[in-house]
Amino acid sequence: MNARTPGFTGLSLDRADNLRMAADRIAELAAAEQARLMRLAGMEPLLSEDGRLSWDSIRELEEETELLFLGISGESPLFAPLSQNDSEANPARMMFTLLETMPAEDAALWGIARSLIIWHNRNGFCGNCGATTVPFRAGWGRRCTGCGAEHFPRVDPVVIMLAEHDDRVLLGRQPVFPPRRFSALAGFVEPGESIEEAVARELKEEAGVVTTQVRYISSQPWPFPGQLMIGCIASAESDEVQLEPTELEDSIWVDRSEVAAALAGDEAAPFLPPPPFAIAHSLLAHWADLD
Amino acid sequence: MNARTPGFTGLSLDRADNLRMAADRIAELAAAEQARLMRLAGMEPLLSEDGRLSWDSIRELEEETELLFLGISGESPLFAPLSQNDSEANPARMMFTLLETMPAEDAALWGIARSLIIWHNRNGFCGNCGATTVPFRAGWGRRCTGCGAEHFPRVDPVVIMLAEHDDRVLLGRQPVFPPRRFSALAGFVEPGESIEEAVARELKEEAGVVTTQVRYISSQPWPFPGQLMIGCIASAESDEVQLEPTELEDSIWVDRSEVAAALAGDEAAPFLPPPPFAIAHSLLAHWADLD
Repeated sequence: MNARTPGFTGLSLDRADNLRMAADRIAELAAAEQARLMRLAGMEPLLSEDGRLSWDSIRELEEETELLFLGISGESPLFAPLSQNDSEANPARMMFTLLETMPAEDAALWGIARSLIIWHNRNGFCGNCGATTVPFRAGWGRRCTGCGAEHFPRVDPVVIMLAEHDDRVLLGRQPVFPPRRFSALAGFVEPGESIEEAVARELKEEAGVVTTQVRYISSQPWPFPGQLMIGCIASAESDEVQLEPTELEDSIWVDRSEVAAALAGDEAAPFLPPPPFAIAHSLLAHWADLD
Repeated sequence: MNARTPGFTGLSLDRADNLRMAADRIAELAAAEQARLMRLAGMEPLLSEDGRLSWDSIRELEEETELLFLGISGESPLFAPLSQNDSEANPARMMFTLLETMPAEDAALWGIARSLIIWHNRNGFCGNCGATTVPFRAGWGRRCTGCGAEHFPRVDPVVIMLAEHDDRVLLGRQPVFPPRRFSALAGFVEPGESIEEAVARELKEEAGVVTTQVRYISSQPWPFPGQLMIGCIASAESDEVQLEPTELEDSIWVDRSEVAAALAGDEAAPFLPPPPFAIAHSLLAHWADLD
């Protein structure tokens, strides 16, 4: 994985968006010999011996379970069970271990299922009128049984960025991070701002850093629960930092050799880097010319 | 406006995110002499004689109206009336005329109010349990009176792109467009895909075009009702086009001189361009080296 192909990307799948409204075609695909159902235990994927996603025949599906149509891969229509308990004891820790070794395209496919199952479970009622909603579009929407309003899966855009000054980049530390971990700063894009404006606002809010220029680098989907991570590098006016203590407990400016050492797993490096499947890792590799 | 400063960007406002949870501080700001309330008629801004947004003293506010805290501009805390009828007879046509002459930063400020008012009106009930919700965070969220779930304003990421081949770019025509209008193709980013993957998918779905490379150019917020428009240029493998007729009724490949003529308002140009405040316009100006 590098800046051009961050984690959760590289999936080769025909989402066949044009079939989603054709309930009869979806039923045909689900009945096909080659149809496959993603194996999940709660929200966790059950992996094969070689660490790939594993699949059941669609005939294993329990009668009352709604189907999510993921798309067509080669000859196989792929589905996930939509009616699914989405509770997780410790989603981050459990999944982050699996994701260290899962191929990025498998992670992306599982990520679609995860994002949509959680979205369905949190949108059983209509925001507009409070009546119950039911799935439609083969799992890619919900329709209100009261007012008829249609609701679509939510994707929240988030900017994530390295501030750069004098050949060093700024990393921050959140209190929830494992020991020694530092990573790129990040925040949700708000209504009424561009990507570049969100980057500048977040760096100012979280670290008191004034931005003079923003370069987009790459992006990735992030299924915890459904973000679009937009990776940027921002030029900073100076290396003075004033942390917002409710967001970050510490920060560090690192140079290219320190980033290279950290990404190589060198224990003498000044920080533990973000995991390889996170776009913060790809951003650091890109900045240090390692991709 | 050019690719670096598309419409709806360039707003200089301290959103003062850290104050939103401090209800007493927000009340102080609203009581200040310099506090200002955006003048709206329905969702339409009431403009001053010089075409700028106009503002009331906060004392004009009706007792029962909830306030949205926009932020602080210079010495003035800015607010908008949150409890507002968001019905519009013909939002696009009415506003698109005003937006032709409104400064981009005023459009951005009005856009925040528009996106949030509509979001509040569509989220009076909790998706999780169906109970009623009430505003909190100075208008930047709603909290459920039943299960306590917190809900935050939605921003939908959308990719909008020119496909480029052999020094020409592809534009498409939707049936709802005014006569002769062609514009960039666009579509919502779905769960489980990056910006680059969404660009490639949409070009394939809508026009049968195979993408070999994607370059990010710029972005803008779009308050109809709340999108983040992500502008890209994609390299196309060929200029063969197969339109999806439910999406586009026509398409056209145009060269730089044709784009320049269209953006200059030349009636002999082969198409009517998108309006100046739309990022499709900025993308065309950027591609034709006019910005």
